[in-house]
Amino acid sequence: MDNPFFKKKNNIYINNILKELNLKQLKKNVSINTIKDLDYAGVSDITFFHSKKYLNSLNKTKSNYIITNLKLRDFIPSNKNILVVENVLLSVAKVTSMFYPNALNDTFDSDVKSIKKNQFKNLKYGQNVLLGKNVKIGKNCFIGHNTIIENNVVIGDNTKIGNNVIIKCSVIGNNTSILDGAIIGKKGFGFFPTKKVNIRYPHIGSVIIGNNVEIGCNNTIDRGSLSNTIIGDGTFLDNQVHIAHNVKIGKNCIITGQVGFAGSSTIGNRVMIGGQAGISGHLSIGDNVQIGGGSGVIKNIASNTKVMGYPAKNIKNFLRENKTND
Amino acid sequence: MDNPFFKKKNNIYINNILKELNLKQLKKNVSINTIKDLDYAGVSDITFFHSKKYLNSLNKTKSNYIITNLKLRDFIPSNKNILVVENVLLSVAKVTSMFYPNALNDTFDSDVKSIKKNQFKNLKYGQNVLLGKNVKIGKNCFIGHNTIIENNVVIGDNTKIGNNVIIKCSVIGNNTSILDGAIIGKKGFGFFPTKKVNIRYPHIGSVIIGNNVEIGCNNTIDRGSLSNTIIGDGTFLDNQVHIAHNVKIGKNCIITGQVGFAGSSTIGNRVMIGGQAGISGHLSIGDNVQIGGGSGVIKNIASNTKVMGYPAKNIKNFLRENKTND
Amino acid sequence: MDNPFFKKKNNIYINNILKELNLKQLKKNVSINTIKDLDYAGVSDITFFHSKKYLNSLNKTKSNYIITNLKLRDFIPSNKNILVVENVLLSVAKVTSMFYPNALNDTFDSDVKSIKKNQFKNLKYGQNVLLGKNVKIGKNCFIGHNTIIENNVVIGDNTKIGNNVIIKCSVIGNNTSILDGAIIGKKGFGFFPTKKVNIRYPHIGSVIIGNNVEIGCNNTIDRGSLSNTIIGDGTFLDNQVHIAHNVKIGKNCIITGQVGFAGSSTIGNRVMIGGQAGISGHLSIGDNVQIGGGSGVIKNIASNTKVMGYPAKNIKNFLRENKTND
Repeated sequence: MDNPFFKKKNNIYINNILKELNLKQLKKNVSINTIKDLDYAGVSDITFFHSKKYLNSLNKTKSNYIITNLKLRDFIPSNKNILVVENVLLSVAKVTSMFYPNALNDTFDSDVKSIKKNQFKNLKYGQNVLLGKNVKIGKNCFIGHNTIIENNVVIGDNTKIGNNVIIKCSVIGNNTSILDGAIIGKKGFGFFPTKKVNIRYPHIGSVIIGNNVEIGCNNTIDRGSLSNTIIGDGTFLDNQVHIAHNVKIGKNCIITGQVGFAGSSTIGNRVMIGGQAGISGHLSIGDNVQIGGGSGVIKNIASNTKVMGYPAKNIKNFLRENKTND
Repeated sequence: MDNPFFKKKNNIYINNILKELNLKQLKKNVSINTIKDLDYAGVSDITFFHSKKYLNSLNKTKSNYIITNLKLRDFIPSNKNILVVENVLLSVAKVTSMFYPNALNDTFDSDVKSIKKNQFKNLKYGQNVLLGKNVKIGKNCFIGHNTIIENNVVIGDNTKIGNNVIIKCSVIGNNTSILDGAIIGKKGFGFFPTKKVNIRYPHIGSVIIGNNVEIGCNNTIDRGSLSNTIIGDGTFLDNQVHIAHNVKIGKNCIITGQVGFAGSSTIGNRVMIGGQAGISGHLSIGDNVQIGGGSGVIKNIASNTKVMGYPAKNIKNFLRENKTND
Repeated sequence: MDNPFFKKKNNIYINNILKELNLKQLKKNVSINTIKDLDYAGVSDITFFHSKKYLNSLNKTKSNYIITNLKLRDFIPSNKNILVVENVLLSVAKVTSMFYPNALNDTFDSDVKSIKKNQFKNLKYGQNVLLGKNVKIGKNCFIGHNTIIENNVVIGDNTKIGNNVIIKCSVIGNNTSILDGAIIGKKGFGFFPTKKVNIRYPHIGSVIIGNNVEIGCNNTIDRGSLSNTIIGDGTFLDNQVHIAHNVKIGKNCIITGQVGFAGSSTIGNRVMIGGQAGISGHLSIGDNVQIGGGSGVIKNIASNTKVMGYPAKNIKNFLRENKTND
């Protein structure tokens, strides 16, 4: 499927990419469709391998062109074309910008209009609502005052959006509520710090929100960089929750107030997280996990586990170690 | 007093309730006025007892009809009618929905209008201000640009409301400031997680804000479920504070940035709380308590105590245990 | 330079100030220009010394009139005029209010207008944008929908401001991005708690944001009290960051989501701070410091140090002490 939010440049060949990365060109030049991560890349896509965490994905990837570094190159099957670079993610950013030159352009959508009467079926909407081009809204929806929905956003049936909400680069399901002041779909906070200046990572992913979800007031949910940020069906987020790029949250989770997720973590189904807990980046949290309020999670958590603490540990150990009377 | 924010259904009898809860009907059918918690229920109201924490309130309640479970039923005086159910709070939610069928309907107020000149005495107001039906505003108030005040909200004299503020289901005192971007009065984040789906708890309470209060930028203050969320006179809240349903904060408190309160805790007078501290639910914090920044409070705190840590403990012990030179 | 945001009262003499503080008047009455902190006060300004932390600044100050208390008076060089009071900061607040009687007046700017076509060079702007008097905007800027920029704010070239942003008392550089929902320049949360009532500290400082900065969604950045709140060139702030009054952040820093800074701390260059970390007030953090997510920093940190924990300590010690398998 084409990315509806960012226009892709076509006619990019492997040798264009090798040139951009200062690598030796191949004899057989072939057209490359786009850049995707290991899991989603197809045979005509280029991908990248930057951490042993992704060995499983590496062994299953369909892509034939893999950007990596010297340390990791020997993990890659010998039938693949390997592009060895110094800094994998910086190279990925460069290649992404070749395909999506506008991926870092995140200015407001100036091409918006007010809603016309009967433009959508049985839509109840407030004052000063602004919609970008090609916004799709299902039947029986609500959109509150001063809310801005930028171009190409898709919203399902019976979904209720509050006041002062801003949505871009997102696809939202049915029977979902987006509460007042939520900001959904801005580019993630991913980049490469260097000694001189901080270079921003391109973000061509979307935010995908399922059915029967509630997004709390003043939540901020960033869109993904290469893959998407996902909130599964039946999941509820309380107020002031922050979800960084590429985070994938499962179904029927309950995320309490002021919880924060760093980028690229995956959360299972029926996970409950207490207020102000923080989840570090690139972690995997299983199903039915319960994380106590205020916890700082810095490693993977197996399914059906209760944890608490900073760093988070088994809740029995946390409570035993902290049994005090003062 | 009638609840101005939610229309109550009348003509509900005890046998209607017993039927809804699949319990045996009484011989003497009587009209029940409404459902309230133990402290506020009158003789014609039904109430509930779901935790030994509320034994004191149980012994003082005026209500004659008490929903509870098998484990707790023996604590209830024998002159009361006891409704034994499996899940007390789920039953309370069902009964509440009988009286207030709209308590979960939290869509934006579409029936708003711009302010008319001289509608309120000496009111200074910005552009795009929207007011719902039956909003009362005292004299000499300020209301900033793009602010939305929904139906039935009451605001006292000399109160200053900033830009982009959203207020519903609230009563606000005199000389109080509500700063930019605050969102006050949405339904709380209380519900019953089940294996299949998360059921939302009805919220028919209000937010009651006293005199000389300051509510910081981008604060989120949820309304109560059965009782109210209360902020006492002279209390100041910094930016990005989150206050969940039913929380009751006393007078002259100072609550610093990014502090969060889980539901139903009670905070005394002159309490000072440092930045990013979190207060768990259903706790009682005394007067003159000082809570250090970043603390996680998970048990009651006696008056005149200084605590810090996660979990919070006496600050002397915290500092002694953490005396390091690294 | 005159303060563009607050009108200063002139013709205030040292004996006016002494009278206000109930001190004995001087024989030689001289005009005092204004009140500033030790570092910035000139020879005609009055200043104050309230903590030994500022001994270095005390020894370099140009001011001849220094408010202090009995305990600290002997640190002050004998050639200065010393005003000994009981509560230094409360006296500073009183004197500040003499010079700036409106410093606590923080109501919305009602004297705003829509942008006129061609009012600024090559500006792209959204709907419902409101500008106060004497706002300066450079060339090639963007201002999103519903954004409010109050009087006297200065914005550089090529700067992009999102939707629903509120800016007051601020000077913003070139090539900087202010993302949706940010609230910049409100008075800080500084005051004097007393047993009876909490007295607010005057805030006549500004927010100074450099070039190539990014301010995240729903950030709150308060203006300084006497000095300014400063964000250095090339620094990036993620979503939901809170920066209190007088905080000074250096260049090329990366501040992740939900981080909070209490008042008056100074942060060096190239500092990286993980999500949800908190920095206490009046601290000094060196260059190239890395602070782990969730940390609570309560003491100064030397340059080139990595810390983590609550309270934050050397990251090696934190990880060693927390090596668990549970």
